Amino acid sequence: MDLKSEYQNRIKKLQDRLAQNRIDGILLVYPIDVYYYTGTRQTATLWVPTDGQPVLLVKKSYERAKQESCVEDVRPFPRSKDFASIVNGARTIGLTFDVLPVQQFQYYGKLLPDVTFVDMSTAYRELRSVKSPWELERMRHAGRQLSAVFAAVPEFFRPGMCEVELAAEFERRLRLAGGEGYVRMRAFNQELFHGLAVAGASAATGGFFDGAVTGQGMSAAAAHGSSTAKIETNQPILLDYTGVFEGYIVDMTRMFVCGNLDPQLLRAFAVARNIQAAVAAALTPGAICSELFHLSKKMADDAGLGNFYMGTPGENARFVGHGVGLELDEVPVLAQGFDEPLVAGQTIAVEPKFVFPAMGPIGIENTYAVTSAGGEKLTPLEDDLISL
Amino acid sequence: MDLKSEYQNRIKKLQDRLAQNRIDGILLVYPIDVYYYTGTRQTATLWVPTDGQPVLLVKKSYERAKQESCVEDVRPFPRSKDFASIVNGARTIGLTFDVLPVQQFQYYGKLLPDVTFVDMSTAYRELRSVKSPWELERMRHAGRQLSAVFAAVPEFFRPGMCEVELAAEFERRLRLAGGEGYVRMRAFNQELFHGLAVAGASAATGGFFDGAVTGQGMSAAAAHGSSTAKIETNQPILLDYTGVFEGYIVDMTRMFVCGNLDPQLLRAFAVARNIQAAVAAALTPGAICSELFHLSKKMADDAGLGNFYMGTPGENARFVGHGVGLELDEVPVLAQGFDEPLVAGQTIAVEPKFVFPAMGPIGIENTYAVTSAGGEKLTPLEDDLISL
Repeated sequence: MDLKSEYQNRIKKLQDRLAQNRIDGILLVYPIDVYYYTGTRQTATLWVPTDGQPVLLVKKSYERAKQESCVEDVRPFPRSKDFASIVNGARTIGLTFDVLPVQQFQYYGKLLPDVTFVDMSTAYRELRSVKSPWELERMRHAGRQLSAVFAAVPEFFRPGMCEVELAAEFERRLRLAGGEGYVRMRAFNQELFHGLAVAGASAATGGFFDGAVTGQGMSAAAAHGSSTAKIETNQPILLDYTGVFEGYIVDMTRMFVCGNLDPQLLRAFAVARNIQAAVAAALTPGAICSELFHLSKKMADDAGLGNFYMGTPGENARFVGHGVGLELDEVPVLAQGFDEPLVAGQTIAVEPKFVFPAMGPIGIENTYAVTSAGGEKLTPLEDDLISL
Repeated sequence: MDLKSEYQNRIKKLQDRLAQNRIDGILLVYPIDVYYYTGTRQTATLWVPTDGQPVLLVKKSYERAKQESCVEDVRPFPRSKDFASIVNGARTIGLTFDVLPVQQFQYYGKLLPDVTFVDMSTAYRELRSVKSPWELERMRHAGRQLSAVFAAVPEFFRPGMCEVELAAEFERRLRLAGGEGYVRMRAFNQELFHGLAVAGASAATGGFFDGAVTGQGMSAAAAHGSSTAKIETNQPILLDYTGVFEGYIVDMTRMFVCGNLDPQLLRAFAVARNIQAAVAAALTPGAICSELFHLSKKMADDAGLGNFYMGTPGENARFVGHGVGLELDEVPVLAQGFDEPLVAGQTIAVEPKFVFPAMGPIGIENTYAVTSAGGEKLTPLEDDLISL
């Protein structure tokens, strides 16, 4: 399929949803949302009417947007008094309230005083969660590139390194592999710089990040990720990194050790791999997201490790996987309370982990696509503990 | 001054402003805003009443917020029905509408149905623009660390490198120097990964980024920064990088060349340095921001280079400097239409640049503090063109 059809299909699905919701169109303003429907990430707003052709209105750079856009009708952003003519009588228009700041909302309210705006965040995120064959190909590429950097860690790890030294060299190689570094997250208070390389008990602390492992980070301002703590022998070394290529993110975790791990950690690692295998096998259309979390939690509990599952005791996260694509925190989420069924083509990072306050974190993560045969692993590297 | 007094002073200045605006308090929800007033960047909301003590309400991680917070009253985020008791009868409450998503706004509206919310973005940004002596010390540290990485470029540049190879090694060294990588930007549609290493005509394109130089980036999704284009001899090589330490950002640009630059580029570089010197000398309390831009523009025009000033012809940006601190795009802006006077302690990246479509970008950038004796340079490296 050519790229133009790819984008036409996306617009078609969006328009079908707009029609179902009985609204007249949607204004997409958030940069990655505009990119998803046009192929360009300039400063621009995309108007998609429920019936008719989309129009891309560009503030900056018009020239680059024109070159890149798969939507044909590209125009300079109109003067305020001309904006209403673009939406051509539409009365009810969708916006994504989850990411649109109040000032932007007020701005569009003034441009279109007669319009009622409705929140289309949830519907939009559902649509984007299902990847096309073209998108899955991008994510397979991202998975191969990221896997190659993980595979090279034994080449560049040196005993005595601190966490951020290991991180810096990992990140350099990721950039050389084509990694873009822009890790978009949609949740209001989340942010991520690349990923994290952490080791031992100092990595077993809580934090703002909605994941099992946070790390100390470099300061209270950068309170996630690697720190200047030295990596010791016999510590669990956890590398959890994203790889971003053409905007598409994959997410994976591997465990390393210089020396030997405590038997309790080795046992927990085996349990994590079993949980991953069970969840991955169940990544089929129709499976209920929350049930996959509960399945994973039961396996952790049955192994006597429930207290340490997905976080330190008392700060345990209630999920085992999250959607990933153009953003790191896409839907669906394999989490308590998320009772939707999976759909073929959704892409999910499955990451069962344990965090032991006295010893540190251990676990595994791969990104999978939902298929009728179970999860297709998009991050093609063996899951074994890697000796350094 | 101890750190506790530092934060008490910030809160005091905020409360004075709230009193001037005759409102009852402010809810700070955006992570970097909470960090500025507490010293912790967890998922939390800070309530600052116009009269009385601030309260930090923490969703995650309570333990880490408690450890780090300079605000004494730290509590778990209350249940919805208990939230109103926190604001204790307040009728008018400020929020920062510039960064608060509509969904968050609606959430606080439901928690506090009897409250009128007002936009305090502008007042808040003004307050934060003036750095304390303690903050200036942080920024001097950031300036020294970033300068050292710039100074080392001749050690690691290799002829035949492509842009992203140069960028990857620069970024590795920046991380080893303690760079945190989280470059916060406040404007809705802006984002930056570290900075950019670009060279020659391929870097002379327009883009979404609100700066003179955008670069090709790695793809349409990452449409800013270095690309895989090979750096050639005799090309202008422009490195524009941020350094982020304890959250504080400095911003600088230096020019490099392997071989010799075209005389027109050398002449433009001399003009840029003259502009920077004139603007830096004028960074005194009371100077009008827009006048500094017009001064710079006149110098560019007088040199016959106005068409290429701050962008390619037709896409010229209308500024010569921007506030910088916990975010890259702070106020004040040395820009057309920004008619406010400078205040001692503001910190501004001054970046006169020229972009020649056939040859590429050239210019200079340093971060300065406004003082009665003119700009104090916080990025202590000589400005000369560096031969590789």
